[in-house]
Amino acid sequence: MTDLTLVTFDWVPDLPRGYVRDLRIRWALNEANLPYTVASVPFRDRTDPAFEAHPFDQVPWIEDAGRPIFESGAILLYLGRKSTALMPEDQAGRDAVTQWVLAALNSVEMAVLPWTLYRFVGDKEDTPGRAMLEQFLTGRLTHMEQVLAHGGWLTGQFTVADILMSDVLRLADRFDALADFPACRAYVEKAKGRPAFQAAHDDQMAHFAAAD
Amino acid sequence: MTDLTLVTFDWVPDLPRGYVRDLRIRWALNEANLPYTVASVPFRDRTDPAFEAHPFDQVPWIEDAGRPIFESGAILLYLGRKSTALMPEDQAGRDAVTQWVLAALNSVEMAVLPWTLYRFVGDKEDTPGRAMLEQFLTGRLTHMEQVLAHGGWLTGQFTVADILMSDVLRLADRFDALADFPACRAYVEKAKGRPAFQAAHDDQMAHFAAAD
Repeated sequence: MTDLTLVTFDWVPDLPRGYVRDLRIRWALNEANLPYTVASVPFRDRTDPAFEAHPFDQVPWIEDAGRPIFESGAILLYLGRKSTALMPEDQAGRDAVTQWVLAALNSVEMAVLPWTLYRFVGDKEDTPGRAMLEQFLTGRLTHMEQVLAHGGWLTGQFTVADILMSDVLRLADRFDALADFPACRAYVEKAKGRPAFQAAHDDQMAHFAAAD
Repeated sequence: MTDLTLVTFDWVPDLPRGYVRDLRIRWALNEANLPYTVASVPFRDRTDPAFEAHPFDQVPWIEDAGRPIFESGAILLYLGRKSTALMPEDQAGRDAVTQWVLAALNSVEMAVLPWTLYRFVGDKEDTPGRAMLEQFLTGRLTHMEQVLAHGGWLTGQFTVADILMSDVLRLADRFDALADFPACRAYVEKAKGRPAFQAAHDDQMAHFAAAD
């Protein structure tokens, strides 16, 4: 029974490989031992009718019994209800996870993503707006360093919130943003050491390599 | 019975007034007729012990029977379960709302916020990174223009997803980003016309004015 389908691109350039957001979904599915199949949509042709399922012509999305769900955060909250390996069953526990899912995406990735966009395009100009983005990221990482100082997962047990937070911080560290934040870096390394992450990463790399 | 407390700053400068995120929460509470009280934390002193409840020393957060919840998106999903004026009761309906809550914050605000930061600091430099942020925002708004072309709310009925999406687009339009996106602008105007938004906006302005 493999009702779950994960949809990702058929191919991407080298730069985003290992960071395409389908990795977050593969990781969660591996943690929970949920069977799934992978379907592809054309990276180079966003007019493909399959993109009907995604309002921003992006990936990933999943289809569960034919019903599509997009947004990696929403997909992980959805999958979290299928397995206690991803999210506790009690409502208070779920509220705590939801809170940290939103924090990873709306407070931390909000600062990480624009900062990394500058690195991706090789922009080295020092302007007031750029300085503001640097300050925004440093502020968020300073707070996360305190949060993660205890060395554990965000809400006690490992959950989908840790998948998102560690993946967001991993992206920042691709450009060495965590050099002064050892607790953040240790958290990312601990997350990357999980077999379910390793398998997800390998599967993503293999998927794109197969299309070269 | 007013167990719900909304925590916001005691004062903010003129620039963010009318846009502080407690407005999203006030708006939802008004839509659902949920009684609440407002508590303040010092904008100028983030070392105040009250900030223990918020890992990023920000606002808003709520306390429900003494339990704090932060992140405006997480708060709105939490409040959504208290009233069908904010979110449907069936799981498929809730999944659709969750998906659009995440889209508003992680796909649209992700593009809007860095773009507006440049306006806030008055940065007019034309650099590759800046061009990338402009392109990111234009892409997202082009897609939202198609999504909102039908003239209705995101999932049929008005929900917390519309509170977030319209508030995010309203911030973009503060700097005229919606000039070429009439469906987005009409959606924001329709949302702003709701009595619960008007009351929330008035309450926020009065709250900060009282501290001047």
